[in-house]
Amino acid sequence: MSVSPQIVKLEPQTGTAFILAAGERVRIIDIEGEQVADVALFARHDAQDRFSPGRTIDYNERLVPQIGDVLYSNRSTPLARIVADTVGVHDVLLAPCSRTMFERRGEFDHASCHANLSRALEPFGLGEDDVRATLNVFMDVRVERNAVKIHPPASRAGDYVELQAETDLVVAIAACSSELTNNGRCKPVGYTVALS
Amino acid sequence: MSVSPQIVKLEPQTGTAFILAAGERVRIIDIEGEQVADVALFARHDAQDRFSPGRTIDYNERLVPQIGDVLYSNRSTPLARIVADTVGVHDVLLAPCSRTMFERRGEFDHASCHANLSRALEPFGLGEDDVRATLNVFMDVRVERNAVKIHPPASRAGDYVELQAETDLVVAIAACSSELTNNGRCKPVGYTVALS
Repeated sequence: MSVSPQIVKLEPQTGTAFILAAGERVRIIDIEGEQVADVALFARHDAQDRFSPGRTIDYNERLVPQIGDVLYSNRSTPLARIVADTVGVHDVLLAPCSRTMFERRGEFDHASCHANLSRALEPFGLGEDDVRATLNVFMDVRVERNAVKIHPPASRAGDYVELQAETDLVVAIAACSSELTNNGRCKPVGYTVALS
Repeated sequence: MSVSPQIVKLEPQTGTAFILAAGERVRIIDIEGEQVADVALFARHDAQDRFSPGRTIDYNERLVPQIGDVLYSNRSTPLARIVADTVGVHDVLLAPCSRTMFERRGEFDHASCHANLSRALEPFGLGEDDVRATLNVFMDVRVERNAVKIHPPASRAGDYVELQAETDLVVAIAACSSELTNNGRCKPVGYTVALS
């Protein structure tokens, strides 16, 4: 197992997508601190088989997945496992920020995770309606009684979470585009890929 | 506005689907008590536009939607509004019970909401991969710290929740097929449709 020292930098409000083979690992790094990354996961060989927050919460019996937990698909396929995590605070409740979300706030033509993930997934034959539920890394969404509130990201510069593919995946990552979610300023996100 | 007195009964471990025009209302009734109903919602004219727990939680700022709250789609379309509710306990976290979920427990060929909703939606051109996130009416899923636990349904005989369509919908309803979720026994679910 060799970890590439090369950190790929996603500029603020951008996204990317790539193949991650079974056994390979992607480390998602908060470069400056207080920055969320939205991650979409699809089985490479049938992209209808994709990350399901509902199954993941059900099988792990936890709202926020922890080290060792598996991220499952709608068909109960183990997609990836969290193998390292320096923060432990992530979100699977909220949908990625989107054009329509910003329009509700009167913000038009705003960059969004939804658009950035969709665009990055185009070469894989996926489109806007394929980006629904994501793992929102470092996002601090708290449930108190029934109230749901977004707090500033819990991550500091250099924090990371690492996912190991349990099957061949298409992975998309966006540096979250919402100023409100990222304590006022959208920052870059880094990642490395380690072969097995 | 006339409310049909005719309660349609869904036998245990079965499902149905139908058109609900904008302004029409569906009342979902727990006939015997302690029985969950899984509800899937799609915009009639473009079924890619469908219920999103993530957007619904985000816009209502609540985990469990309450009377007056709107159920939103992935495209932020208002799909339906909760206009009556005698229970106030529902779930949008967990995915509908499915064949693959039961197989994980060693239960094979088990009836499931996922299969029943998929089958009911076939005439509308929808299939298994279109049934992902549902509103799980009367389901009592509690989050304590980070632990998620399913409790017996909070509903008693005669309890109901009523949804008013905000746009033309395809609605699918299943009487939940999981014995564990329904305090040991799968029971029927009733519904009525009221025209506007």
